Amino acid sequence: MSHAELDVVCIGNAIVDILSQSQESDIGRLGLTRGAMTLIDAARAQTLYQKMGPAVEASGGSAANTAAGIASFGGVAAYVGKVRDDQFGGVFSHDIRACGVEFTSVPANAGPPTARCLIFITPDAQRTMNTYLGACVNLTEDDIDSGQIARAKVTYMEGYLWDRDEAKQAYLKAASVAHEYNRQVSITLSDAFCVERHRDSFRQLIKGHVDILFANEAEITALYQVADFDTALQHVRAECRIAALTRSEHGSVIVAGDEVHVVDAVAVAQIADTTGAGDQYAAGFLYGLTHGYGLAECGQLGSIAAAEVIGHVGPRPEVSLSELMAKQLPAYSSAQNVSSTAP
Amino acid sequence: MSHAELDVVCIGNAIVDILSQSQESDIGRLGLTRGAMTLIDAARAQTLYQKMGPAVEASGGSAANTAAGIASFGGVAAYVGKVRDDQFGGVFSHDIRACGVEFTSVPANAGPPTARCLIFITPDAQRTMNTYLGACVNLTEDDIDSGQIARAKVTYMEGYLWDRDEAKQAYLKAASVAHEYNRQVSITLSDAFCVERHRDSFRQLIKGHVDILFANEAEITALYQVADFDTALQHVRAECRIAALTRSEHGSVIVAGDEVHVVDAVAVAQIADTTGAGDQYAAGFLYGLTHGYGLAECGQLGSIAAAEVIGHVGPRPEVSLSELMAKQLPAYSSAQNVSSTAP
Repeated sequence: MSHAELDVVCIGNAIVDILSQSQESDIGRLGLTRGAMTLIDAARAQTLYQKMGPAVEASGGSAANTAAGIASFGGVAAYVGKVRDDQFGGVFSHDIRACGVEFTSVPANAGPPTARCLIFITPDAQRTMNTYLGACVNLTEDDIDSGQIARAKVTYMEGYLWDRDEAKQAYLKAASVAHEYNRQVSITLSDAFCVERHRDSFRQLIKGHVDILFANEAEITALYQVADFDTALQHVRAECRIAALTRSEHGSVIVAGDEVHVVDAVAVAQIADTTGAGDQYAAGFLYGLTHGYGLAECGQLGSIAAAEVIGHVGPRPEVSLSELMAKQLPAYSSAQNVSSTAP
Repeated sequence: MSHAELDVVCIGNAIVDILSQSQESDIGRLGLTRGAMTLIDAARAQTLYQKMGPAVEASGGSAANTAAGIASFGGVAAYVGKVRDDQFGGVFSHDIRACGVEFTSVPANAGPPTARCLIFITPDAQRTMNTYLGACVNLTEDDIDSGQIARAKVTYMEGYLWDRDEAKQAYLKAASVAHEYNRQVSITLSDAFCVERHRDSFRQLIKGHVDILFANEAEITALYQVADFDTALQHVRAECRIAALTRSEHGSVIVAGDEVHVVDAVAVAQIADTTGAGDQYAAGFLYGLTHGYGLAECGQLGSIAAAEVIGHVGPRPEVSLSELMAKQLPAYSSAQNVSSTAP
């Protein structure tokens, strides 16, 4: 049992990704929702897997990917999520610990198997996700260790947890403990369809509990039911202390009261698979925030991490983000400075 | 139950690979044998896995990789190997079938779990393999379907099978059935350490049963206990109808009585992971051989397939080898012709 301070504790659905290079025609043929995360049951998972091409397996889970990314930057991260005591659970547990992330959640010894996400990667590198939650249904308030939450500068959670009432309760407990200890609470909206399912509840949450919000363009416009990004930006600005809004190749916008930064994306020679891009952006941003970087640099660290993960198949960094940061952040910042002095 | 003719039936250890990008220092620290395939027991597998970094999982197994490669060329392949009815067994079975390979071996419903191979990839792209055979111990003569062997132009087997007596018996049964039906028998020597363990037995086998032999330089020199490649070449020439001898970046030498071809390797921009290179060479060669190509072109197809698989992490092709063949074989052959007319 560690008592060291944590930079971030991440809470989410503990999932093993099953990634397959697919044809564009698979999306229609299999009735998938392109680019989205769709929840599926065990029977549908079996059917889809049978129809999926050869695949590779890699530990995933949105918040777990973020924890792995923070550790890769050299940050101190913990993860809370539920696996079963099966082979996929063993893979998940091994990988998150091998990243250097504290992971003490007890695996379920009964009930459904470890969650998996069937990911169809189309030739444009877009990922279409189909998640069977399995053992994640066993994540409840009891899995939140108040002592651990109290040790973390930031408690970060994925919006996906909102899909189950027990997980939502776990989430609210964690947020409440964090604030009790004057820590910060952060959430990602995760997916536009997830926002559609829980809009009112998310809006209440953001007003009442969230210090740092992550969302992409589709999610933030869905949240406020507005047509364009800028209108959503004005809404969120009034409701949230810090919002980091990502816009794919257009970079990100960070807004914190009067402070606004527009941060470029990092160019990628060849985009292989966008799985985990948002998760790694959050990793870079939160690493920066818990290590005294300014908000613009936090966004730049997010861009650096996102660029790494979309260059290969799989949702977690394959090279040390700490080394990438040392190489790329100085160049990035000076490029930004140059462009900010241009007319 | 299919009755169609098969190009190749491949028999081997059915294994899920666990691949991790490692440091050079891991090899010494963990007491691994660099570049080799080492058999490990369950306890050692657990210990090594605990000490291994984050990994990805991909279906492997030498002969299974070859079957997948033959299917990717558009050939008709079957695979025989033993998994357990567990999650890794499900992954293996899914992937081999999703490649279009006939796979009817019944999974074990008791006994040890599906085999896994812990692969440490060092920065030079070399792979160091540590195999826990698990459910493979259940592969016996009973798993050889004489009707299936009779349907295949070539029965191909991995030398790794020689490490267990029951598998060796299965192997000898398959070879005997194949010859009874005037089919060809092929083997790869698999690994120099495997050759050391079974030298006399391999030599008897090659003289008595093998039509097409695959070996790399280390394996063929170990087999004949000679210091250099050329001496080994003269030995094997007298003992085997066709031998395809691979030499990494130096390409391959194919010898069949008086016919000898020296075939170049295909250059690779960046070698990521050599796992599966020999398996894919065999896939290209056997695809060519069962589709009427000359021996030089068989070697070229081997080089094309090997180059594809070392360009990425994982032991099986990620793009269609059939398409690669259409693009690269004509250029390859004409380049060879040009160089053969040079002084």
